[in-house]
Amino acid sequence: MSHPAGPEPPSAQAGSCDLPEPLVERAALTHRKFDQTTFRWEGVSPQVYKRGEGGTAGMGWRDVVRHTLAGGETLAFQLRYFEIAPGGFSSLEKHQHAHTIIVLRGKGTVIAGLEVFAVEPFDLVVIPPGAPHQFVNAGPEPFGFLCPVDADRDPPRALTDDELRRLVQDPEVRAAMRIA
Amino acid sequence: MSHPAGPEPPSAQAGSCDLPEPLVERAALTHRKFDQTTFRWEGVSPQVYKRGEGGTAGMGWRDVVRHTLAGGETLAFQLRYFEIAPGGFSSLEKHQHAHTIIVLRGKGTVIAGLEVFAVEPFDLVVIPPGAPHQFVNAGPEPFGFLCPVDADRDPPRALTDDELRRLVQDPEVRAAMRIA
Repeated sequence: MSHPAGPEPPSAQAGSCDLPEPLVERAALTHRKFDQTTFRWEGVSPQVYKRGEGGTAGMGWRDVVRHTLAGGETLAFQLRYFEIAPGGFSSLEKHQHAHTIIVLRGKGTVIAGLEVFAVEPFDLVVIPPGAPHQFVNAGPEPFGFLCPVDADRDPPRALTDDELRRLVQDPEVRAAMRIA
Repeated sequence: MSHPAGPEPPSAQAGSCDLPEPLVERAALTHRKFDQTTFRWEGVSPQVYKRGEGGTAGMGWRDVVRHTLAGGETLAFQLRYFEIAPGGFSSLEKHQHAHTIIVLRGKGTVIAGLEVFAVEPFDLVVIPPGAPHQFVNAGPEPFGFLCPVDADRDPPRALTDDELRRLVQDPEVRAAMRIA
């Protein structure tokens, strides 16, 4: 392949006292290869989606796992991958942080406020602060999506009775939503 | 399809004085459908990758576009999609914010410090703060990747002469890097 040549290596200057800090700490560099067969990233294990809360209306969920791909003190966000098995759904919840998702596999239904979206790879959905939302697998394959999110964020909350009432009064939302 | 039934709609309570704020502002909700043929998101136009700087060693680049998918005052991060045409490459640069990329299409080479990675869909690479890095298309198809990044971040800088010298002294890095 023809390509632009790199510069010639300059003469070695070992012992120069203006050497910069190490180019990069090898341990901090991460390359996580993706396995198309298992749909997993090297070194990343699926975790439980969230703890309990099934006792509060709408906060139940079914067959969801979370893969944490990136995060930590050097980032203002975390990058997660969620996967919902056929028949599964996330909790119906709200919070003040916005959500951004990019679908990687399968077909899903996204409820956001009084809107219902059918999504597939690589659709993007931005859910604004405060909007009640739920992710539902809408097909026979796993439904998976990336979800980068602010590292500093408020916890999810259940909907109020009034909010739940307004959602179920909308026929399209009512047909799409899932309550465990 | 059999699925859990939603709750029965409660009786209407129009005029209740404890109604919450609107469930969601419709205008703030975003569903950008992805077009598999054009590899673009509805309503998102490719923009110039970055302005000039080709006069500084390593800061040149070739055939790169940026799609800004999400960002703004409600998010601590921006979500961008970069696409590098065959033969193209990003600038060789460094900054104090970390990079996180997820490949969506094509084959690429990632130089990060003195490491060189071959990447393909949906590989993940995390590049720590300060590491010199460059993205190079390594195949005949466009090489595209998502790159969520802190909204509040320092601008990219060119490498120092010492850093450039150390990179080109490594045969693998020297073979992989591109200087416009």
